[in-house]
Amino acid sequence: MHRLLAAAAALALAVPSAAQQAPAPAAEIPSPGEIAAAAPAKDWIAIPASDLLMMDLAPDAAGKPRRVVIQLMPAPFSRGWIGNIRKLAAAHWWDGTSVNRVQDNYVAQWGDATEKKPLPEGLAVVPESEYVREADHFFSHRFASGFNVQTLPNKKSPVLVPDSYKTLTEAIFGWPFASDGKQFWPVHCYGMVGVGRNMSPDTGSGAELYTVIGHAPRHLDRNIALVGRVISGIEHLSSLPRGTEALGFYGSEAERVPITSVRIATELASVDQPKFEYLSTESDSFLKYADARANRRDPFFIKPAGGADICNIPVPVRAVK
Amino acid sequence: MHRLLAAAAALALAVPSAAQQAPAPAAEIPSPGEIAAAAPAKDWIAIPASDLLMMDLAPDAAGKPRRVVIQLMPAPFSRGWIGNIRKLAAAHWWDGTSVNRVQDNYVAQWGDATEKKPLPEGLAVVPESEYVREADHFFSHRFASGFNVQTLPNKKSPVLVPDSYKTLTEAIFGWPFASDGKQFWPVHCYGMVGVGRNMSPDTGSGAELYTVIGHAPRHLDRNIALVGRVISGIEHLSSLPRGTEALGFYGSEAERVPITSVRIATELASVDQPKFEYLSTESDSFLKYADARANRRDPFFIKPAGGADICNIPVPVRAVK
Repeated sequence: MHRLLAAAAALALAVPSAAQQAPAPAAEIPSPGEIAAAAPAKDWIAIPASDLLMMDLAPDAAGKPRRVVIQLMPAPFSRGWIGNIRKLAAAHWWDGTSVNRVQDNYVAQWGDATEKKPLPEGLAVVPESEYVREADHFFSHRFASGFNVQTLPNKKSPVLVPDSYKTLTEAIFGWPFASDGKQFWPVHCYGMVGVGRNMSPDTGSGAELYTVIGHAPRHLDRNIALVGRVISGIEHLSSLPRGTEALGFYGSEAERVPITSVRIATELASVDQPKFEYLSTESDSFLKYADARANRRDPFFIKPAGGADICNIPVPVRAVK
Repeated sequence: MHRLLAAAAALALAVPSAAQQAPAPAAEIPSPGEIAAAAPAKDWIAIPASDLLMMDLAPDAAGKPRRVVIQLMPAPFSRGWIGNIRKLAAAHWWDGTSVNRVQDNYVAQWGDATEKKPLPEGLAVVPESEYVREADHFFSHRFASGFNVQTLPNKKSPVLVPDSYKTLTEAIFGWPFASDGKQFWPVHCYGMVGVGRNMSPDTGSGAELYTVIGHAPRHLDRNIALVGRVISGIEHLSSLPRGTEALGFYGSEAERVPITSVRIATELASVDQPKFEYLSTESDSFLKYADARANRRDPFFIKPAGGADICNIPVPVRAVK
């Protein structure tokens, strides 16, 4: 009975660390995880150490270390907030702060619970216009055609169809994006990291961050800034006790989970820097992987779905030596 | 800073227990949770005690009780497996079993870790044809028109659009369903409960169950049986430590979480039976709620999405005295 749901899970769980798992038993039709794991080295792209934000929580009750690794989005997206996050990390501002909120099927959120810790000088105030970008920018060759899928070079991608949110979605340059044909923006998939804010849309500095730990809350897209994603250790956030105050906030200092340090990896000696790669979303391997996610034909499955939503095709990420 | 992301969360978390939360501050435009909470009594439907499966886990480290309440799907869906589940509960078969697997962003799964406990006599072997139903059955008035949304009585529903899975989806009779116009089937949303199986699709008896604790794994739809949903206490499963063996299985007896009892509520004295209601998906209140989920205009939001996927419009459920 231990194998119940097993084949189905082999990949489903694989993400984003699927490629690191032990290889599944040989099958005639490979699973998405097996496709990713078999991708040639040229299809994997190294993540610069300067884009890795390492958050260490206090050890758990058994004394085990808890490290969460976040990959920041590359320029030009969300760079105002990401610039602030780099300043906050350089100032060691998060050291001594805590995880303050864990709301089931929604988010885990961290920052300064006292709301009194002074912020470093020079943080940018970033306007709401930065939540999206115009489609004639950076990604114009993908989205400028305005939903005319036939003209897109990657037209085989299974997610290049209008979805329930009336958007066209695709993983491009390693990240999940949506577009309405005029603008495009990153998507609130599981594990994505965003910038908490107050009611005014320009109030998020980057000091208060959250990650998605449930079904994609895509109603937040274009309403709040996304800056990265958890690529390792999300279980240290997603398995925390849910807060019992309104919105999942913890009601007492004892419940909050201390953050001992947050560092950009380049602050460590080179030998101590973690190394990760993601599967190029522009590679043939990714297309095969995405197609297999949308059409599971590996053992266990009897009926391929014929499609998938963008958050059910997470970009494979793996740790490397 | 405590309000960061707060308004956005007020409803997002509300599900499925949104309507139970303390009312949010008055706003000119109500949130989806406020719409559900304000629905008249006639729009709420009592869940029969005979459809409530109560699973008690061993108390947590602090001695607090952990009860998970599951609503079984009403006939005619999945009745073969649900009949088995009723027999297993009546035999107190799950007492002394355990939660054996918790895989991040996927499922928590429970049953007999020894794989040796004899099953009760007379459990049905249910064929894979029961994963779906023909659209000319029970729901013909909704789906028989084959994607012709205009002919559907509920045509204003924001999810009555083809989605990323090439299906038409809708919450009907209180549950999330998808259809390809010919068949329809329940959907693997967060909190839905399904029947683990081995490789052969008729091998799931109902003794091994799982619930979704991550982004909707809709590639499982039509590949495995869904029988219900967690309507209370899912945090007792979703916040458990993730298993470190393959597929998130726990590697030792010490890690497994004991199940002390599983009962259909009717086995309790009437006064001890929990009482829940769900918001009728055929009510005007639900239409307003669904529209608000797809078009957030309450404070905090600056850009309504214009749509939502079926799993981002969970059916509101509330406990009642």
